[in-house]
Amino acid sequence: MALRFELLSTHSSGARRARLHLPHQTVETPVFMPVGTQGTVKAVPQGILEELGPDSQGAQIILGNTYHLYLRPGHDLIARLGGLHKFISWPRAMLTDSGGFQVFSLSGLRKISDEGVRFRSHLDGSSHMFSPEHSMDVQIALGADICMAFDECTEHPADEARAAESLRYTMAWAARSLNHFRANQHKVPWHKEIINSDGTLGTQSLFGIVQGGMYPHLRRESAERLVELDFDGYAIGGLSVGEPRELTREVISTVLPLLPKDKPRYVMGVGFPDEIVEYARMGVDMMDCVIPTRAARHGLLFTSQGRMNIKNRQFAEDQNPPDPACTCPTCSRYSRAYLRHLMQTGEPLGGTLNSIHNLAFYLTTMANLRRELEVNP
Amino acid sequence: MALRFELLSTHSSGARRARLHLPHQTVETPVFMPVGTQGTVKAVPQGILEELGPDSQGAQIILGNTYHLYLRPGHDLIARLGGLHKFISWPRAMLTDSGGFQVFSLSGLRKISDEGVRFRSHLDGSSHMFSPEHSMDVQIALGADICMAFDECTEHPADEARAAESLRYTMAWAARSLNHFRANQHKVPWHKEIINSDGTLGTQSLFGIVQGGMYPHLRRESAERLVELDFDGYAIGGLSVGEPRELTREVISTVLPLLPKDKPRYVMGVGFPDEIVEYARMGVDMMDCVIPTRAARHGLLFTSQGRMNIKNRQFAEDQNPPDPACTCPTCSRYSRAYLRHLMQTGEPLGGTLNSIHNLAFYLTTMANLRRELEVNP
Repeated sequence: MALRFELLSTHSSGARRARLHLPHQTVETPVFMPVGTQGTVKAVPQGILEELGPDSQGAQIILGNTYHLYLRPGHDLIARLGGLHKFISWPRAMLTDSGGFQVFSLSGLRKISDEGVRFRSHLDGSSHMFSPEHSMDVQIALGADICMAFDECTEHPADEARAAESLRYTMAWAARSLNHFRANQHKVPWHKEIINSDGTLGTQSLFGIVQGGMYPHLRRESAERLVELDFDGYAIGGLSVGEPRELTREVISTVLPLLPKDKPRYVMGVGFPDEIVEYARMGVDMMDCVIPTRAARHGLLFTSQGRMNIKNRQFAEDQNPPDPACTCPTCSRYSRAYLRHLMQTGEPLGGTLNSIHNLAFYLTTMANLRRELEVNP
Repeated sequence: MALRFELLSTHSSGARRARLHLPHQTVETPVFMPVGTQGTVKAVPQGILEELGPDSQGAQIILGNTYHLYLRPGHDLIARLGGLHKFISWPRAMLTDSGGFQVFSLSGLRKISDEGVRFRSHLDGSSHMFSPEHSMDVQIALGADICMAFDECTEHPADEARAAESLRYTMAWAARSLNHFRANQHKVPWHKEIINSDGTLGTQSLFGIVQGGMYPHLRRESAERLVELDFDGYAIGGLSVGEPRELTREVISTVLPLLPKDKPRYVMGVGFPDEIVEYARMGVDMMDCVIPTRAARHGLLFTSQGRMNIKNRQFAEDQNPPDPACTCPTCSRYSRAYLRHLMQTGEPLGGTLNSIHNLAFYLTTMANLRRELEVNP
């Protein structure tokens, strides 16, 4: 069976607390998912990722990027080696995106048709085609617990005609994704090895993605038609593409009420710590973002006292931990002065230690919210 | 008191087993010392470094580079923050080089006189002067357990006149280093906080460095004169500068018999795994080298089955651990296929996981040799 969504409580704000039973892990929501673009959450060893956050619970679920893994090392290779979990040695839950967003980011290098998207590799310029069917084949080969329908991410700003045309692709591709996924999801050699905690055979789940640009009526149409198709969960895509934050919030609040209460809701590609809390309070169950790791590699730390650019001269002799309220491996051992030195000298350990802290901060932020929701039901 | 050298056994080959009692750590020799150039063993978190190798003993002693730390973040800053151990959060033993070798590597950017070496920073071209006295001041400020006399590293090849002139600098600077070190070694604010395991006040030790190029009579002269000065230990420098390995061996075997049996002997900047075993069997107690970490970042792994370029295509689908005989965190968890993928994609985790394995291999190599010497005295 696919995922089982166990709703524990719904709050007056709209926030929900739930358990997402996936083949590799039962995930407590609201949850933040670190991004492991190329089969690694950049610069952080898996063993450390498993122990971050409060109670050393670690990351429950991480992302892999279909576009990148398709190009290198290739989904066929990963399938032959037993799937992405085994390839990267990650025993917990994983989610793969559809490749749509990455292809969207290539802009000049892609061409969209009813069939799908033809694009040139950012690595060597070679020509490739992603269709809904191909994206499903790749994601089935990767074997993540949750797959995403192949969508067309609408840029911002986009006029209504462009947003409507983009949505037409997304909706047609959603149906084709679902059909192809249902017909082929068992076609990996190891599929019978994945067993749910209740003894049933674990299978991959497929989420639909709501698009429609910043147009409420297109977003509503997208959500309603996707719900009719009956996915295992629903994502809101096409956000964090440069729009002001009020618009992000507006789109989320437009779409959420149209999604079924008994299935998970995922907002893709957000955000800063205060954003993920805000959207979780609105009723979002899952979020992912590269911000904690990307910012870390540039020296930007998120702390209980706000943002901190650790490269600033003011930290040169600061012996305090980056965040005195944090118990992560970085804050438990190292000073601001040392982290600044690592960034100033371009030492790779700087990116690693900063990423460890930022991810711990994100995971702790969500864990604190879950606890708050539990204590104040 | 400075270090205490406890000789446990001497073998017919010349190999010795000993304990080196230093303020921060009792080091078992023969020992390999990972290099932490800028206050970090590149790409490896300190917590992992503490648990590498057999019995999770970890690295007992690591190096810091005086030249690099002088430039960034500056020895005065490190002194104000309580010394290098505290700054980088490394509670075990440390050794700092004198800066002489790094300045030597600058070649075109330096000018040597009796006073010392004037050089230009590789970072911004600014002009600096390292004299024996200044090198001692910097190393006292850094506070490592073992400091090195300021020497002039002779290039290879060098004719006899050049080698003799270079040695003249080294010998004059050795005496000045020792005098200045003895007079000033307590001039750090935290020096009374360092206590040996037997309750005595822990102080820094100073090693002299034997130079003389590839000329046996110059090497002999250097060793004999240094021994008269009575250092806490003796290093053989000016090796691994491009000479053939027979010559390295010859210099070591010329010098070792001239050094006192009751003090530690350190060959600087070597080598490959088979070299460090060979030199240890000749009676060398301590060695350091960047090879394990530098090679790792380029995908070269040292294993029980020999060298392995993990980037080779043949490993693309190889699910074996890098070294099936190794129990390090990398070999316990990851496959050759995954490590290759990380290198192919330029992911920072590749350098980290490879470095962890190579360092574990070096530490295990020395631990196995120590065990062999213990079992067959």
